[in-house]
Amino acid sequence: MATAVRALWWRGGALHLVDQRALPGRIRILRLRRVQPVAAAIRSLAVRGAPALGVAGAYGMVLAAAEGGYTPARAARFLAATRPTARDLFVGIERVRAAWAAGADPLAAAEAYRAEVVAECRAIGVAGAGLLARAPRVLTHCNAGALATVEWGTALAPIRAAREAGTPVFVWVDETRPLLQGGRLTAWELAREGIPHAVIADNAAGHFLQRGEVDCVLVGADRIARNGDVANKIGTYEKAVLARAHRRPFYVAAPWSTFDPDRSDGSGIVIEERDGAELRRLGGRRLVPDASAVRNPAFDVTPARLVTAFVTPDGVVPPGRIAGALRRHRRRAGPTPI
Amino acid sequence: MATAVRALWWRGGALHLVDQRALPGRIRILRLRRVQPVAAAIRSLAVRGAPALGVAGAYGMVLAAAEGGYTPARAARFLAATRPTARDLFVGIERVRAAWAAGADPLAAAEAYRAEVVAECRAIGVAGAGLLARAPRVLTHCNAGALATVEWGTALAPIRAAREAGTPVFVWVDETRPLLQGGRLTAWELAREGIPHAVIADNAAGHFLQRGEVDCVLVGADRIARNGDVANKIGTYEKAVLARAHRRPFYVAAPWSTFDPDRSDGSGIVIEERDGAELRRLGGRRLVPDASAVRNPAFDVTPARLVTAFVTPDGVVPPGRIAGALRRHRRRAGPTPI
Repeated sequence: MATAVRALWWRGGALHLVDQRALPGRIRILRLRRVQPVAAAIRSLAVRGAPALGVAGAYGMVLAAAEGGYTPARAARFLAATRPTARDLFVGIERVRAAWAAGADPLAAAEAYRAEVVAECRAIGVAGAGLLARAPRVLTHCNAGALATVEWGTALAPIRAAREAGTPVFVWVDETRPLLQGGRLTAWELAREGIPHAVIADNAAGHFLQRGEVDCVLVGADRIARNGDVANKIGTYEKAVLARAHRRPFYVAAPWSTFDPDRSDGSGIVIEERDGAELRRLGGRRLVPDASAVRNPAFDVTPARLVTAFVTPDGVVPPGRIAGALRRHRRRAGPTPI
Repeated sequence: MATAVRALWWRGGALHLVDQRALPGRIRILRLRRVQPVAAAIRSLAVRGAPALGVAGAYGMVLAAAEGGYTPARAARFLAATRPTARDLFVGIERVRAAWAAGADPLAAAEAYRAEVVAECRAIGVAGAGLLARAPRVLTHCNAGALATVEWGTALAPIRAAREAGTPVFVWVDETRPLLQGGRLTAWELAREGIPHAVIADNAAGHFLQRGEVDCVLVGADRIARNGDVANKIGTYEKAVLARAHRRPFYVAAPWSTFDPDRSDGSGIVIEERDGAELRRLGGRRLVPDASAVRNPAFDVTPARLVTAFVTPDGVVPPGRIAGALRRHRRRAGPTPI
């Protein structure tokens, strides 16, 4: 069983990526045979989304090993320097680095990691589908779909699973400025699968919550601290505050690779500040005067107190119990947990 | 005394407008000599902003009177059918209709209305400057500047006045999707006058509030009910909820023409839903798949309980006292109050 959309796959010694910068206008596939263009694809957001970054990083390590000229540690440092916030990127790289350094097959390690991510996303879907039976009109932010995770998605997995189960889901899609991953990518995934949805300006989410047309908010994550603080796409925090103000549940769906056991809370999470050009121009149009300053943080941190529950591969877990669930997962997963 | 930026002016029997659709890339002046293109300019947002719409509507009536073929009532109906939410539009039209119907000079009535709007905006600046001395890092949404009001602005008037008084103001400018009036217009006004500012995605306002980098929120309005409920650009409500969550004051600056004495609260205010094309494409780029639905409300309603105070031409007034202040203004202003 697979979803209609996949972010990336391995074939013939090459990493194949759907170039997410070109969507929804064009479906362009990148075939990458060296580690350098994998790093460039990550940096330029041709591939993005925390779980997908982890798998892309893992395959990037495979290419570095085949290419020669890299030690496992050097290849890992090179790929890890691309983006700072999503934890999964570092987990995927580390999985293959450890296998490579131990003399095991890097490709087998990357394939195993990819399979785990897909399986975890599927499990997130099963775990979260029941929540949507009681709250079928879902607001989501950014893209936490198949494009962000290889298949299924994190936030979109329960939506897909609920739909399969016959729940009449409806998805409010924040367009998600500046890079419009909601309007361009989430809407594209939902349209391909015929799931009813409407794209709105990020500014309109509060209005539809106020009108009682949103039952819950469901998002993905880039990094989650032990206490349940969540780093995710800029604007997530605003939606969490709005959900609370309207007494609507705010759910965060993520595989275990997104949870950071080394971080007690969100205060130290590095927030990437991206180039102001992302706000200044679009499609050849100037949107901001050249004389104006621009600030462009790519992520924000939502405090655990605003999270109703996490949707994990092991079930729905409230923030107060997430540290324990993470410990249990890591004991079960053994020496190289994701 | 005048600001460096003006939205519109009358010269040689024509209404001159800065075409706000072309900013900040190009400064294009429209010269309109008939009422039909004035209506088209209003509908297409070549001119926008509640007080500026009122003045444009007033001059549109002058052109209709000069053109012949219209009764005062028919011209008023024609111009009033352009946009539903901003109250000022109807006030400006009605001022000239009444003068014209009574045999008075329509142009003199329009000029008097324009002068009142400018004087009220200047008074709003004086009234609000003191608030910013205690809260100099201001977040604003949309454009409530000279472009929205002829001169000075509503929300930008206290910012200009505080700056003149030596307050080190800094303005966080929400880009304001979908039409980017913040990034395109507010930033352009502030850049022309050298007022320090930074444009941010609407999604980032919560992040900077959370980091303690915003002292207050200050916006304009399109229509204000007697109880203090405020209709303004979509996204205003989100910022009001965020300001409250962070215990920061939320101020609404408006001339008396924006206050609607006939509306007890915000529940019945007509919210214009504009064409989804505003979200679907920009600068030749497709931003949303054609198969996706789009919802595009242009305004939202912020309940009075989230408003710290109104900045009016008669001073700073808390929501609980705004109905009384409006009554006093109308008694003072006489039979055709704005």
